[in-house]
Amino acid sequence: MSTRSLQAIVLAAGLGTRMRSAAPKVMHEIGNLPMVGHVLKRIQHYQGAEIGVVVGPQMPDLVKLVARLAPGAQCHEQVERLGTAHAVLAARSLLETPKDDLLVLFADTPLVTDAAVARVREALAAGADVVVLGFEAANPFGYGRLVMRGDTLLAIREEKEASEAERAITFCNSGIMGFRGAIALELISAIGNANAKGEYYLTDAAELANARGLKVSAVSASEDEVRGVNNRAQLAECEAIFQSRMRQEAMLSGVTLQAPETVFFSHDTVLGVDVTVEPNVVFGPGVTVEAGARIRAFSHLEGAHVGAGSLIGPYARLRPGAQLAADTHVGNFVEIKNATIGAGAKVNHLTYIGDASIGARSNIGAGTITCNYDGYGKYRTDIGEGCFIGSNSTLVAPIRIGDGAYVAAGSTLTEPVPEDALAIGRAHQSVKPERARDLRARFAARKTGKP
Amino acid sequence: MSTRSLQAIVLAAGLGTRMRSAAPKVMHEIGNLPMVGHVLKRIQHYQGAEIGVVVGPQMPDLVKLVARLAPGAQCHEQVERLGTAHAVLAARSLLETPKDDLLVLFADTPLVTDAAVARVREALAAGADVVVLGFEAANPFGYGRLVMRGDTLLAIREEKEASEAERAITFCNSGIMGFRGAIALELISAIGNANAKGEYYLTDAAELANARGLKVSAVSASEDEVRGVNNRAQLAECEAIFQSRMRQEAMLSGVTLQAPETVFFSHDTVLGVDVTVEPNVVFGPGVTVEAGARIRAFSHLEGAHVGAGSLIGPYARLRPGAQLAADTHVGNFVEIKNATIGAGAKVNHLTYIGDASIGARSNIGAGTITCNYDGYGKYRTDIGEGCFIGSNSTLVAPIRIGDGAYVAAGSTLTEPVPEDALAIGRAHQSVKPERARDLRARFAARKTGKP
Amino acid sequence: MSTRSLQAIVLAAGLGTRMRSAAPKVMHEIGNLPMVGHVLKRIQHYQGAEIGVVVGPQMPDLVKLVARLAPGAQCHEQVERLGTAHAVLAARSLLETPKDDLLVLFADTPLVTDAAVARVREALAAGADVVVLGFEAANPFGYGRLVMRGDTLLAIREEKEASEAERAITFCNSGIMGFRGAIALELISAIGNANAKGEYYLTDAAELANARGLKVSAVSASEDEVRGVNNRAQLAECEAIFQSRMRQEAMLSGVTLQAPETVFFSHDTVLGVDVTVEPNVVFGPGVTVEAGARIRAFSHLEGAHVGAGSLIGPYARLRPGAQLAADTHVGNFVEIKNATIGAGAKVNHLTYIGDASIGARSNIGAGTITCNYDGYGKYRTDIGEGCFIGSNSTLVAPIRIGDGAYVAAGSTLTEPVPEDALAIGRAHQSVKPERARDLRARFAARKTGKP
Repeated sequence: MSTRSLQAIVLAAGLGTRMRSAAPKVMHEIGNLPMVGHVLKRIQHYQGAEIGVVVGPQMPDLVKLVARLAPGAQCHEQVERLGTAHAVLAARSLLETPKDDLLVLFADTPLVTDAAVARVREALAAGADVVVLGFEAANPFGYGRLVMRGDTLLAIREEKEASEAERAITFCNSGIMGFRGAIALELISAIGNANAKGEYYLTDAAELANARGLKVSAVSASEDEVRGVNNRAQLAECEAIFQSRMRQEAMLSGVTLQAPETVFFSHDTVLGVDVTVEPNVVFGPGVTVEAGARIRAFSHLEGAHVGAGSLIGPYARLRPGAQLAADTHVGNFVEIKNATIGAGAKVNHLTYIGDASIGARSNIGAGTITCNYDGYGKYRTDIGEGCFIGSNSTLVAPIRIGDGAYVAAGSTLTEPVPEDALAIGRAHQSVKPERARDLRARFAARKTGKP
Repeated sequence: MSTRSLQAIVLAAGLGTRMRSAAPKVMHEIGNLPMVGHVLKRIQHYQGAEIGVVVGPQMPDLVKLVARLAPGAQCHEQVERLGTAHAVLAARSLLETPKDDLLVLFADTPLVTDAAVARVREALAAGADVVVLGFEAANPFGYGRLVMRGDTLLAIREEKEASEAERAITFCNSGIMGFRGAIALELISAIGNANAKGEYYLTDAAELANARGLKVSAVSASEDEVRGVNNRAQLAECEAIFQSRMRQEAMLSGVTLQAPETVFFSHDTVLGVDVTVEPNVVFGPGVTVEAGARIRAFSHLEGAHVGAGSLIGPYARLRPGAQLAADTHVGNFVEIKNATIGAGAKVNHLTYIGDASIGARSNIGAGTITCNYDGYGKYRTDIGEGCFIGSNSTLVAPIRIGDGAYVAAGSTLTEPVPEDALAIGRAHQSVKPERARDLRARFAARKTGKP
Repeated sequence: MSTRSLQAIVLAAGLGTRMRSAAPKVMHEIGNLPMVGHVLKRIQHYQGAEIGVVVGPQMPDLVKLVARLAPGAQCHEQVERLGTAHAVLAARSLLETPKDDLLVLFADTPLVTDAAVARVREALAAGADVVVLGFEAANPFGYGRLVMRGDTLLAIREEKEASEAERAITFCNSGIMGFRGAIALELISAIGNANAKGEYYLTDAAELANARGLKVSAVSASEDEVRGVNNRAQLAECEAIFQSRMRQEAMLSGVTLQAPETVFFSHDTVLGVDVTVEPNVVFGPGVTVEAGARIRAFSHLEGAHVGAGSLIGPYARLRPGAQLAADTHVGNFVEIKNATIGAGAKVNHLTYIGDASIGARSNIGAGTITCNYDGYGKYRTDIGEGCFIGSNSTLVAPIRIGDGAYVAAGSTLTEPVPEDALAIGRAHQSVKPERARDLRARFAARKTGKP
């Protein structure tokens, strides 16, 4: 990794009107991480990097989000919106104490990769003063064209100002740029606004730097890496590309995805080798699945750990705090929240386990409910090892079921159960012969109006 | 909107043998609306339009369906199948009292848009006597080619009868046509059957009209808009195009679809701004979701209203008559049917609420079941405001739980609960020390055959 | 079908390192059948065919799998890995008593069709001594090119050894070959290893056979049919092609798939005419659905039979041994395992039915649980015809509910219920007036710290 020091400015001030949203554009998520978070990750990859985020006026939620995602980052408010160079200069205080490299990234271009950023930095390390990240556009219409002469980037030409020859260029501007830190502030400050909109465009830095005899170059990324988001259809396209990357990585590292296009990852999902994921599985944030586990169809996991060799689903929901040891079984229509499940334990059907611990090898019958909430507080259910909880039981927390205990089906329990004891909490059965026949007759009579 | 009066004939008599179905082809659904319904909607868009639907013999279910979808429409039976012109003339009684415009549409071409129909009518309003809706075919083989001279459509040439030059034409016939009402009946009646199959083809109207010095023109639609359905694979293709349209519209209007390709809409789904829909959500007919609500993964909604800011799913099923106020929570493995849920109320886990009302801010514990059916009739459960229903409760309807009441976990209730009362209906717990150990020993003995 | 006798050798010895798996490559599944099973099926199509499977050392699980899938097949161990010809000769004992035709297939090329195999055999029947199955490659780079002269295949040229002219050939080698049985052993034994890797390549048989004046020809398959699997991304691609085939076949035979891309089949799924499958349905192995049934969204079926006209789901899980008669209803969050459900019976909500039989027209209320397991053994629940099981009931097996019986909601039953009787097993309700108010006050006090 580079030993050069780094500053990065992330432009995040855009209103994103076409998103038609009350939230700032860059707070919209990809892989359950706000777009700005993806870009911040690219910089956090470099230890000690200084980060400035340029936000728009009245975006307190975004400022809070940045503080959470990148605790050391500074937010700078761009009061008026007068172009990208103007936006960068909102972080002037940062630029006044430059580092070796300055990167300018866009929070609404969330798919840029570590590799692409590294290429920009390599070009700076190799002596460039200004570096532009370009891409080969399938359809270049509307993009700024990178006018190259050999290795030198002469200018970035906008569609409207391009000559016919320039319009034929397919190597286009992603917006992402690198600067030698020492010259950045002076160069960017020199950008003028003599254009139709009267704005200050960072892209003008390329031509300006050439005029000053600085070295200006371009490096290349794929078009997908530099895709920008302006509306929710484009957000969905970026999400799809992100998901496709995650799926491909997982498969090549030894995970079977039976129908990869139906498995949804979060940015931080971790799956071990020989994990099998059936169709239609959603991984929310914070999930780790260890080797050899099988996640069956229609499962939904968030903030959960699944031990090796476990069998989850179909229709299992693991919520935050679900900690499953090895070889556990969690079956259909089961919800586990804030609970540890011991090795080899089984919770197979129609059950809610919340705020609980279940010991190794215990078996929780179908329809069991831990009553962790009484309308005011939350309480814990502790079930020991080797217990058998009969079906349709109601366990009113706080409650402790000792190791090896047995709970009769249909019981409601409110008191502790000692080790190896049998607990019963249900009424006796009574039978009224012929009563069902009578009831039917009465119902039938009611329908016909006869007594 | 046009002030011209309108008649439309929808051809729906086809047997659809290749569908391999007991039902008439045009009753198969797209977006949970029969194909014929999509075409009827295009006409119903124009107030006061007269509609004739040409059906085949022995299609009583289709006749009933048309009566339900378009109460004023007349069905006309085409007894023999002798071509499209013959089919149109099955509605002769309609044509005998013409309106300004006559449209001929096909019930198995369900994706035609309002815009395409409007273009046909605009051409009629601009003076055309006959108008054909054409499309640029990616692969024109097999389609009738539109032979144009300037703005004039000279003829519609079928593949077999086309010259080499005509075969090179890519502008093709969708089948959909418009006629000046006053000339329609006479013109269509003049179509002959001097062709290989001895059938009467409506497409011959173009050449015939030219021969009479009438003005014949063509307008254009996209190929997707005029896609016909002959088998279930084509039905699925049309469904996919329809879904794609709905998703795109939703996203551009401010709805986040995390994985648009996994969200399925009905023809009448309405989602408010800043609604987020996670992967794998199915909207059946009759769903409205208000602004800011989040529909989590694996949810299924039909005939339901979701209030603003509500949180639904994952794995929530809202059935017809589910009316949720603002800020409600409906969680995993919960079914709500014919029930109103008050603002801020929570029904979070493994619950069935049917034929019920739940007051604002009430909390329904996991595993609660409303017993609305006794095998003969259905009864209501009324839960007041601010109630707490303990987990695994069984509420036998008809029953009323007063405001602020509290039901102990595991209770079965058959009698009303007054306001602010506590209701309990469960057996006491008894514990048999060491009994589980004894049971295990006995089971083990049984396995080894020893007493 | 051919009257010629057949031997087939299936090469299955590859380590599949790039799968990054503890299991042999060819045990990975497509449509819930191991890859090797797909290839075995192509041969089992021919009655009386002799099968040899060449496995690698230390693959006991694969040997067991082959024995299960193709009981008559012999496994031959290839101790060293010295090329495909060397692998075939591991089955030398088979080749020593030849049949009319010898086929060589690859267990990691699982999508080869019956039609493609038939074409190879037809070429043998027409007099060829050696036949290669080729395909037109979209991008031939890396494949062996089939150098043809008229109908004669002169040689199979590997990329590295190909001339420029040969590299332009797009007709490529799939690896799959046929031999006249009588000449196979001698010909394959004559293949040398004078090449860079010092391995014995079966592809050399083509040139060698030509040198001997034998007739060598090629037949053609689609590229998808001969796709090989080397990593899990390629496995997923083959799975996708397989699924696409199954969906297309189903639709053209009269099944409606509303969103075919979201329906997952197993290799042996059978669906009747006018079956409708909603989005997001997974068919595990061993499922048959009869005519007119509807499988609603988010359903998961394995080892189950669904009778005509039944309505399954949404969110229904049918596990192995679920046998549903005609016109049954199985609704949301319901699990059925090893149970027969009589005609017209309904199990609509949040229920577990395991090791049970339910008679015709019985209605099982929401939240019902059959307790089939007591921690040691499994027992049966038998419910008669026309029964009504009230909601949230717990039925402790072994238990018998007689025809026409009625179980009160919320009951736990451990004893048999006679025909037409009413059974109740629940506690009486008691109400404590104002107690909920008191509780709230006490909770509030606890929060504020006041008594």
